[in-house]
Amino acid sequence: MEKTNNVIIESNVNHNKSGDILIESAEIVAVGTELLIGQTLNTNTYYLANQLTLLGINSYYQSVVGDNPERLLGMLQTALTRADLVITSGGLGPTADDVTMELIAKAAGKELVLDPVSKQSIIDYFTGIGRTVSDNNWKQAMMPQGAITMPNNNGTAPGAILVFDYDGKKKAIACLPGPPGELKLMFEQSLKPWLEQRVNYEFEHRFLHMIGIGESNAELEIRDLIERQTNPTIAPYASPGEVCFRITQRKLRGRAEADLISPVVAEIKNRLGQYIYEDGTRTLPEIVFALLKEKNQTISFAESCTAGMVSAEFGSIAGISEVFAGSVISYSNNVKEQILGVPSAILQQYGAVSKECAKSMASGVRKSLNTDLAISVTGIAGPDGGTQEKPVGTVYIGADYKGQLTFEKHMIRGNREKIRAVASLRAFHLAWRCLKEKSDN
Amino acid sequence: MEKTNNVIIESNVNHNKSGDILIESAEIVAVGTELLIGQTLNTNTYYLANQLTLLGINSYYQSVVGDNPERLLGMLQTALTRADLVITSGGLGPTADDVTMELIAKAAGKELVLDPVSKQSIIDYFTGIGRTVSDNNWKQAMMPQGAITMPNNNGTAPGAILVFDYDGKKKAIACLPGPPGELKLMFEQSLKPWLEQRVNYEFEHRFLHMIGIGESNAELEIRDLIERQTNPTIAPYASPGEVCFRITQRKLRGRAEADLISPVVAEIKNRLGQYIYEDGTRTLPEIVFALLKEKNQTISFAESCTAGMVSAEFGSIAGISEVFAGSVISYSNNVKEQILGVPSAILQQYGAVSKECAKSMASGVRKSLNTDLAISVTGIAGPDGGTQEKPVGTVYIGADYKGQLTFEKHMIRGNREKIRAVASLRAFHLAWRCLKEKSDN
Repeated sequence: MEKTNNVIIESNVNHNKSGDILIESAEIVAVGTELLIGQTLNTNTYYLANQLTLLGINSYYQSVVGDNPERLLGMLQTALTRADLVITSGGLGPTADDVTMELIAKAAGKELVLDPVSKQSIIDYFTGIGRTVSDNNWKQAMMPQGAITMPNNNGTAPGAILVFDYDGKKKAIACLPGPPGELKLMFEQSLKPWLEQRVNYEFEHRFLHMIGIGESNAELEIRDLIERQTNPTIAPYASPGEVCFRITQRKLRGRAEADLISPVVAEIKNRLGQYIYEDGTRTLPEIVFALLKEKNQTISFAESCTAGMVSAEFGSIAGISEVFAGSVISYSNNVKEQILGVPSAILQQYGAVSKECAKSMASGVRKSLNTDLAISVTGIAGPDGGTQEKPVGTVYIGADYKGQLTFEKHMIRGNREKIRAVASLRAFHLAWRCLKEKSDN
Repeated sequence: MEKTNNVIIESNVNHNKSGDILIESAEIVAVGTELLIGQTLNTNTYYLANQLTLLGINSYYQSVVGDNPERLLGMLQTALTRADLVITSGGLGPTADDVTMELIAKAAGKELVLDPVSKQSIIDYFTGIGRTVSDNNWKQAMMPQGAITMPNNNGTAPGAILVFDYDGKKKAIACLPGPPGELKLMFEQSLKPWLEQRVNYEFEHRFLHMIGIGESNAELEIRDLIERQTNPTIAPYASPGEVCFRITQRKLRGRAEADLISPVVAEIKNRLGQYIYEDGTRTLPEIVFALLKEKNQTISFAESCTAGMVSAEFGSIAGISEVFAGSVISYSNNVKEQILGVPSAILQQYGAVSKECAKSMASGVRKSLNTDLAISVTGIAGPDGGTQEKPVGTVYIGADYKGQLTFEKHMIRGNREKIRAVASLRAFHLAWRCLKEKSDN
């Protein structure tokens, strides 16, 4: 057994020969004055931190520093004493301000040399867009000696990975370009596969998305599981407006190990199944889309306080026109009456924010737009318009599924933006349950 | 002259008495494991960095560190050697993990003491929401000796400002809570006014927003002004989907100085006036709202590829119901014909993405919803559906203003998300010009 293990492990560390490195910790250093002055939100560090976590690599610090050579060099040196790997983002452009590659070479004690592969890819890029290469673009082909070049398939600046001895230890620096579209593609295509070969463990993740229960209550329901589990681990995962748990199994790299995740997922489903809408990575609108497609059915929306948010989110899905007929945004009562056919008696007797109006809006839009399912939203998003009986945050969601009417009342806390966002999510939640319940029967 | 200056300056540094501090540089240290693992996007640092820039305070580093006492203390000590002021965010909660206040006291060599004002405000907060204070909430009333307490008007954890001698220099630490809503309010209400009294300069900013011209072309038009100016300075300012310049005059604090901004603004308007839609801080939808209100007129939208984005953005403005009747999201041709009355001949002959359809959609929704102005959007957002004649990114915007029909064709580059976002902005741009041109005449 012992022997088999060793053999298997060794066959999977063949990239990890002498001179290579094992990566347990990493530090992200974002380079750019635009970050220091608050002109740009640092989404790169957020993305990279999340990716490192999924790879099981620890991070203890994150830093931002400007394009100042002295401060950047100092920061690289500090980071190298604290982590196995330093990942930089930004400062790879063609101008004199862009000093990252030069300072990485300096920190590693290497010379910059012209990299023929990078040179050719820069020529190819400019030829592709029908322009000639300007002199300062060659700067981007200068790489620290011994670096592994990472091609940039979304721009001109190649990245680099450099492994070297630093204070008697093996360290690595990986530098990625600043534009998020370039950074993400390069990470996915080049750095991530390189890292996967240099971590001791593989992590397998599974995500359970739920709605209709708060995070603290959901945690309470499975607290014993969370506390008991060491492998797999169960942890809340960021996913705005809903609750998501990540179940993670740690495996020795390349080892065929038993599936420890499925029994845990089964137990969580056993306890929280009614709230779980996805065992995977799809969003709620994507699931509603998939269900409609599967059933060959169509949907429409009648929105009041959300004013198009539900429709716009649905419209962000490519190919949605197969199932999405359209919507009516009925901000004024006039539109509710004339386009949706809400009886004026309902508006007078119960008001626009009422279960009666929600149901009438849903059935009105379903008839007008001739769809299988219709969802309506009417509520008070504030800051004004609330009453004692119907305070700001009162929202009714209505549904008409093939003539069967339902509604839900929600009291949503928060500001106008929050109330509208949560109301949108609730609209998809009701759509999902309409479609799901009929599927299950 | 010299004497007058001195007198005026002195009268304005009366807060800056012995023991107080002059702040020229600041470093933001965000505290939280959720940032290190990529669970939370660091919007606090982005917000604070932008605010510091507006106050004229320099930042050379930003850091993130977890709730680990040793590493946080080390980070505070490092930051104190590099900046006059260290601002922390996060780690002020009631649990054992929240160690920021304790370590700030340690870094400053102070004891933690129970602050009676903070204690009372915690009692008031819990009484207000009808709950009793739990034992660990008192922890949040423990403050470093000599600290200025900043009340938290959006939560329970008060903040603190501490001024102390560090390595023979005056230094300050300000600690703010982690939840963005609490942090922003506390900064605005307490820390910003405190800082304004401790900077040498006052900065007056003016923002010129423009649309219809790219950033590099706009910069080209005023490059000589940008390069010539030292006070006021002209700098591009982050504002997604449009071009914005910030014109900033630096004044000695409290000095009545000549307005140097207006002549520069006049010259920029002279060159780029046709693109400028706002000399101030309002967004394009807000300006459209204001114009409609001023004219006592109403608007409606007919959206196809944007699928509700235009309406939803308009709906995010409080009080919009005064001018916004509603919209029709006409994703299917069926809805275009039946609800908007687009003749089937137009759809057959020119297609749904055509100037004819855009105009017909605008006039259809204006008639149905009975508004003064109507704007329509129809286009190909991709990734599929493009043709050689009408590639992905082809978008028509139509307008019907009191029966007068206009349209615009745009070719928008980017992915589905980008195309829809830019198309939305263009819709507001056309609405603005319709309303503006009629105003000017």
